[in-house]
Amino acid sequence: MAGSSFGNIFRITTWGESHGAALGVVVDGVPAGIELCEEDIQRFLDRRKPGTSSLSTPRKEDDKVEILSGIFEGKTTGCPISMLVRNTSQHSQDYSEIASYYRPGHADYTFDEKYGFRDYRGGGRSSGRETIGRVAAGAIASKVLSELGISVEAYTTAIGPVNACLDNYSREKVLNNATAMPDNDADKEALEYVAKMRSEYDSVGGVMECKVTGLPAGLGDPVFEKLDANLAKATMSIGAVKAVEIGDGVKVSTSLGSENNDSFVIENDSIIKMTNHSGGILGGISDSSPVVVRAYVKPTPSIFKEQKTVNKSNEDISVQIKGRHDPIIVPRAVVVFECMTAITILDALLLNMTSTMNGIKKFYS
Amino acid sequence: MAGSSFGNIFRITTWGESHGAALGVVVDGVPAGIELCEEDIQRFLDRRKPGTSSLSTPRKEDDKVEILSGIFEGKTTGCPISMLVRNTSQHSQDYSEIASYYRPGHADYTFDEKYGFRDYRGGGRSSGRETIGRVAAGAIASKVLSELGISVEAYTTAIGPVNACLDNYSREKVLNNATAMPDNDADKEALEYVAKMRSEYDSVGGVMECKVTGLPAGLGDPVFEKLDANLAKATMSIGAVKAVEIGDGVKVSTSLGSENNDSFVIENDSIIKMTNHSGGILGGISDSSPVVVRAYVKPTPSIFKEQKTVNKSNEDISVQIKGRHDPIIVPRAVVVFECMTAITILDALLLNMTSTMNGIKKFYS
Amino acid sequence: MAGSSFGNIFRITTWGESHGAALGVVVDGVPAGIELCEEDIQRFLDRRKPGTSSLSTPRKEDDKVEILSGIFEGKTTGCPISMLVRNTSQHSQDYSEIASYYRPGHADYTFDEKYGFRDYRGGGRSSGRETIGRVAAGAIASKVLSELGISVEAYTTAIGPVNACLDNYSREKVLNNATAMPDNDADKEALEYVAKMRSEYDSVGGVMECKVTGLPAGLGDPVFEKLDANLAKATMSIGAVKAVEIGDGVKVSTSLGSENNDSFVIENDSIIKMTNHSGGILGGISDSSPVVVRAYVKPTPSIFKEQKTVNKSNEDISVQIKGRHDPIIVPRAVVVFECMTAITILDALLLNMTSTMNGIKKFYS
Amino acid sequence: MAGSSFGNIFRITTWGESHGAALGVVVDGVPAGIELCEEDIQRFLDRRKPGTSSLSTPRKEDDKVEILSGIFEGKTTGCPISMLVRNTSQHSQDYSEIASYYRPGHADYTFDEKYGFRDYRGGGRSSGRETIGRVAAGAIASKVLSELGISVEAYTTAIGPVNACLDNYSREKVLNNATAMPDNDADKEALEYVAKMRSEYDSVGGVMECKVTGLPAGLGDPVFEKLDANLAKATMSIGAVKAVEIGDGVKVSTSLGSENNDSFVIENDSIIKMTNHSGGILGGISDSSPVVVRAYVKPTPSIFKEQKTVNKSNEDISVQIKGRHDPIIVPRAVVVFECMTAITILDALLLNMTSTMNGIKKFYS
Repeated sequence: MAGSSFGNIFRITTWGESHGAALGVVVDGVPAGIELCEEDIQRFLDRRKPGTSSLSTPRKEDDKVEILSGIFEGKTTGCPISMLVRNTSQHSQDYSEIASYYRPGHADYTFDEKYGFRDYRGGGRSSGRETIGRVAAGAIASKVLSELGISVEAYTTAIGPVNACLDNYSREKVLNNATAMPDNDADKEALEYVAKMRSEYDSVGGVMECKVTGLPAGLGDPVFEKLDANLAKATMSIGAVKAVEIGDGVKVSTSLGSENNDSFVIENDSIIKMTNHSGGILGGISDSSPVVVRAYVKPTPSIFKEQKTVNKSNEDISVQIKGRHDPIIVPRAVVVFECMTAITILDALLLNMTSTMNGIKKFYS
Repeated sequence: MAGSSFGNIFRITTWGESHGAALGVVVDGVPAGIELCEEDIQRFLDRRKPGTSSLSTPRKEDDKVEILSGIFEGKTTGCPISMLVRNTSQHSQDYSEIASYYRPGHADYTFDEKYGFRDYRGGGRSSGRETIGRVAAGAIASKVLSELGISVEAYTTAIGPVNACLDNYSREKVLNNATAMPDNDADKEALEYVAKMRSEYDSVGGVMECKVTGLPAGLGDPVFEKLDANLAKATMSIGAVKAVEIGDGVKVSTSLGSENNDSFVIENDSIIKMTNHSGGILGGISDSSPVVVRAYVKPTPSIFKEQKTVNKSNEDISVQIKGRHDPIIVPRAVVVFECMTAITILDALLLNMTSTMNGIKKFYS
Repeated sequence: MAGSSFGNIFRITTWGESHGAALGVVVDGVPAGIELCEEDIQRFLDRRKPGTSSLSTPRKEDDKVEILSGIFEGKTTGCPISMLVRNTSQHSQDYSEIASYYRPGHADYTFDEKYGFRDYRGGGRSSGRETIGRVAAGAIASKVLSELGISVEAYTTAIGPVNACLDNYSREKVLNNATAMPDNDADKEALEYVAKMRSEYDSVGGVMECKVTGLPAGLGDPVFEKLDANLAKATMSIGAVKAVEIGDGVKVSTSLGSENNDSFVIENDSIIKMTNHSGGILGGISDSSPVVVRAYVKPTPSIFKEQKTVNKSNEDISVQIKGRHDPIIVPRAVVVFECMTAITILDALLLNMTSTMNGIKKFYS
Repeated sequence: MAGSSFGNIFRITTWGESHGAALGVVVDGVPAGIELCEEDIQRFLDRRKPGTSSLSTPRKEDDKVEILSGIFEGKTTGCPISMLVRNTSQHSQDYSEIASYYRPGHADYTFDEKYGFRDYRGGGRSSGRETIGRVAAGAIASKVLSELGISVEAYTTAIGPVNACLDNYSREKVLNNATAMPDNDADKEALEYVAKMRSEYDSVGGVMECKVTGLPAGLGDPVFEKLDANLAKATMSIGAVKAVEIGDGVKVSTSLGSENNDSFVIENDSIIKMTNHSGGILGGISDSSPVVVRAYVKPTPSIFKEQKTVNKSNEDISVQIKGRHDPIIVPRAVVVFECMTAITILDALLLNMTSTMNGIKKFYS
């Protein structure tokens, strides 16, 4: 079944496997007239590139994007933008062994059950490299949003037991720190923690948060296409994410109504909320406060420690996974999270244009 | 924009407002040949009916379902099943006052911003009564799944600070306890806690869990249509839900790879997992362990305590909400959660039929 | 599979069978703020009502519409509008005989093959009564379009061998003539022709045309969502339509490029086309000339003449169909055609709002 | 808006412009386990390649396909198959002149109106080269269908006034004749007719037909997703098609019910139809007779004759189009028509698997 597309008006379709010839994305529904070049995309792809810190695999992946369509004289034409990245640094032989058994925590078993066999090289379609298409598409969504004054920024808030303090947030720290935390002390502490766990042949999890500011009120829909429902799907569709929160999230379950309700108040003749427990969404519709989404990410399932599992001859075995694997998924997933959020927000923003007869008349007048 | 439909093959479209003439749903894509009568639906609707315990509003809503199409000689025909419930016990005058201001924690403000005005009677489309359509549709999905040996059961795991113990789980307790907890002691304690908070004009939140057993491996898709991604959307589309977890959920962020990975093992010549941290889903695809989803629900935003807000003349005001409101949303939302899960699972199960050439050949031979 | 919905942004979902309790439609994505009442809908439904002329069955069907949701204080709220019409004049006993055999030209056989059995009363879901939902939805689409200065008008151009002359077209003639032809002489002649064929226990076919004027250029999409492609689907989805044409249609195949190309010319400082062979669409996108669609409709398959067929015991038999049947489908299908066209055009108009960055900036400024 | 995808379960997304770097398609929802190689695709692409006869432009386009994903060890994996063809023989300078004016019969004007500007090189996205993606995807659909015993064959039935006789149909003639007619005499006559019109700087239209045999009864849906409705959309989405017929098509409008109804009859214990006026579809659902679709194609709009038009300075001008253009579209469009039909049929076949509870139980047992 066709499950590689996301979005309605602004719709992306990703394709490609870890060790195939290339990976890519077709982005359809891009409005015409936006200035766009490969550098706009590459800047985002470089943020998910491995080999840039001790937190990521030493694989060298250049991940140079090529735009194949949808741009004319430097501008989007309104036609689909096809982008691809060639696979260059793949060592297929590293993976030949895992063809015979099911790695714990991976999709090996479920792929075999669903499709009858699988492309076992590097996780195939379930590889983290699948997100290359998402990031390339998200770079476009982010550019469109930024032209409308909307900013989407994701960052790491926790790695294992180490929590970042968000008080002195700066985008610069997020982009410069290996952990993508906006807190230099926590960054340092987290790096040490990961190094320790890695030396024990283990891996760690973490938490990332995405904040959308500048969003007008009114985006999203009251029932199934709630803005938070689509953000939840977008976020949970990222491999390794096991929980999603909006605003106060899990905490609301032990909160009282009088604590959790955000009071409205007039400030400079505008209506604002005094607090933002709701995470910028009320009844599925943006309320013009910042939208806040959080994702909880499991530890990398590929660990070098010995593990029990079974092989395809239905035998219990012990395995030690080899190859090059990140000891933590979070830092490189941050840009993926940011991109999926941007794509979801842009789609809601476009869909919202048709909500009222007054808006339609204004547009067509 | 059209946001009142959910699902691809098995697709539901809900309609109706709290104080309109009726509410209902059209369920399209129901396979032909299933025995179905109004009693099958009513049993589910009765579980979300108010007025049955101290936890819910004293409103008497009969909520009698009427099936208008898609059944012939007691069986589904393959054509859309339209169902409606008439609104009978609505007191529109209770709501006239709230037309002039924005209730904190409600969608009043965002509706006005999006649509220019709103049906302010009882929350309109954002009322909990919208879920009548979801529950009626979910009753059908549950029936189809049960004929395939798949069971979907939701229950309350926490109310405010009171946690249920799941060790002696029984469906009977869930259906009989006012809290929908499978733990009689916790049920009693939670009732007391809610009564206390209610007497202080406040409201409380809680947690619910849904477990799917008997599911074959292979349902879901590796990228955007991951089974967990669709469950996250389905769950977050329920009003008041602010966080969704799959399996260990939030906890994975502080777990180690060696702890979080579920080892495979051979038992009775079959492959099973020794643990189920993954919540029955690996790489977006069901792994045949129970699927476990958890939803965190905020406290009812309608509280009788005085609150600050603004009115439509842009003035700061204080309000005390009147009317009949549940002090907690969770117990009546449990059946909604169960139904949204069943709908999502059934859709994935139908979509999965087209995954392999062998399956297609078997079907058409 | 879910096949009872049409449209993307403005999406309709119809339900109901000829002899069930009721038929109806849910219209989702209706922009907020449009004045709408039952009379707006009823006027359209009355045009497809039977029993008003010698061309239609003497069945009395009141077909009174009831609006159940989506309207507040006389205006659309942006939430789904649910409408239903109760079945009142159904004689199920008329149809008991046809349960045992397959009527030629009907869907009896294909329903049994697809679903294993069928609701045989009056054609069930394949009855012409299914179009009640389409017409109710189309009435809303037409109202929205008319507020934007766009008119959609359908009429009969031929009945059997009798062709209408369109030179003195008036909407009044279309609405008053039993044939829905805009030509009083042809109307008279066609009535005589139909009466003659009916007396011979036979039925006749015909042609209808729909013209959309006032449409801005730019609606539709260059590839699969071409405006003409969606009009073709909308038209062919009407039971009994076997051919669809845009503009010159079939004739283009024997035309030369120099004849078929429409030259552009400046008139009053605007660009217009000197001719309209293209039927208002170039490359799938509206060119601001009138959009012209034509539908060829087969003769009513229910005829009183003896016919050969088979029964469910796999025996060759001869049958004479009884009951009340129109000797021609076209006149009552004209409003259905008009409505499906209006729905398709409105959906394209809404989708088009997101085509350019300039348009989006204008909207959100 | 996202308009470059087609299909539900088997879904294709095309991208690319005539003079961009490449054109291609992502085919999602391909069942796993089908043997597939580039040669399977290339054979289809070669049928639409220009430069092979006097009917087509002397442009040399190699159109070599590259498969980038979705295949492992020679078999489809169930993951999206991305294919591309590099543009190699494009002379962009040929088109610089047409940037300033609107070619009659082309989409130049409507693109500018919709998007504000256009990629004017060779028609951009509206070029016939866009169909490369459709054909590559259709080659896969055809292969799947052929493994199920279903054959889809298209051919030319008329060019201008020259009609092919179908009595001695052979696939070989279709593939060998430059016109794609299954009639050698008509082929010769048509070639002469085209040569004559070309020498007069003009172009001609034609008709093509597609026949699907071996199709089981039951595919398609009774309302909007009728098999004929989707075939109509698929066909009309091919550039230059202006009319679509199913079965007897246009002729039904002058037929009588007694003539047009196909009688059922028992033959070898099976139910068959004595005639096939319905074109293999009753009530939107396949009836197991051959499905017959016909498409009427306009003459190539690019002609060398002088034509009136306007330029972008709003001036009336006369133009003579230069460059390399086919004098007729039909022969190369035949394979596109065949492919769009195959894609539509396959999607219906997959969707049909979920129609009955018995079928679902059989599948999951």
